[in-house]
Amino acid sequence: MSSTATRFVRRTPEGEDRERLTCADCGYIAYENPKIVTGSVVVVDGKVMLCRRAIEPRRGFWTIPAGYMELDETVEEAAMREAREEACADLALDGILAVYSIARIGQVQVLFRARLASPGFAPGVESLEVRLFDWNEIPWGDLAFPSVHWVLKAWREVGDGPLGAPRTNPVEDSRGTGGLAEGS
Amino acid sequence: MSSTATRFVRRTPEGEDRERLTCADCGYIAYENPKIVTGSVVVVDGKVMLCRRAIEPRRGFWTIPAGYMELDETVEEAAMREAREEACADLALDGILAVYSIARIGQVQVLFRARLASPGFAPGVESLEVRLFDWNEIPWGDLAFPSVHWVLKAWREVGDGPLGAPRTNPVEDSRGTGGLAEGS
Repeated sequence: MSSTATRFVRRTPEGEDRERLTCADCGYIAYENPKIVTGSVVVVDGKVMLCRRAIEPRRGFWTIPAGYMELDETVEEAAMREAREEACADLALDGILAVYSIARIGQVQVLFRARLASPGFAPGVESLEVRLFDWNEIPWGDLAFPSVHWVLKAWREVGDGPLGAPRTNPVEDSRGTGGLAEGS
Repeated sequence: MSSTATRFVRRTPEGEDRERLTCADCGYIAYENPKIVTGSVVVVDGKVMLCRRAIEPRRGFWTIPAGYMELDETVEEAAMREAREEACADLALDGILAVYSIARIGQVQVLFRARLASPGFAPGVESLEVRLFDWNEIPWGDLAFPSVHWVLKAWREVGDGPLGAPRTNPVEDSRGTGGLAEGS
């Protein structure tokens, strides 16, 4: 990106109220919007599936299957794709468990509660290993991101019961501006 | 944008499984991700607030206060900002009522149920008028987008009661690939 950086300037376009990344040559506006991460708390016989990351950031740390949503898919399709890619798992989604904003890095996370639609799972190329954990086995000190903590606690509260309105950021980080860098 | 179009090519970068918009000169990858629209079904004395759009697309048609989320804000802050901008309204959000995917245009809509935190509202610069409608007064034939229909029906189902898991796309348009163009 460094070799193109000099072509773009921050400028307030006519009719707008904030600066936008604008091409100095042609005026093209590169709108920068928050990105959506989708993922799932996958529950199997009361245990939760975690993947140990094979990629940076936070290689070697545990996370739920999740990643950036692509164009041409729905949030549900994206969550299922990520589980296929990272855990070779075929999911049935129950519904949305949590929606978190990580304002510091322009990210919104839409996280589902899910089950396996067919048995079996295995590490995908982005995972070193995939395992099921009882609640009291969860490696809290080795979780990749704050939002993994948050969503596991949200799952603990709701259990197998009916999903209410989605959980949102905890009060101690209501804007998602603290803690470790999030990533996918 | 037309003058820059020739500089970008669709190419599959090493280690990726799909084509990305790539600068032919320097290799910069312009990741294209879905954009998040946030908005609110604002309920006042059992009536719902609708804004008549002063801008394209769908100028003159009715919609809920909603628009594109910006960087450096949470989904909640974005929904409240849009209500301020479009309806000069100060909201208290109840929680997330619906999450819709409009895959055809790479959009995810996170829509809240809300009340007025302080009395009063008025058209903002993007609205021709702002009005409260009883259910049987809603101008169904003059709504701006399919998702406005969807979320009003979702609100009708849940009423003032507890919010369950968010409503998702209706079965007849489960991927958001049909109907009128969405916009903000």
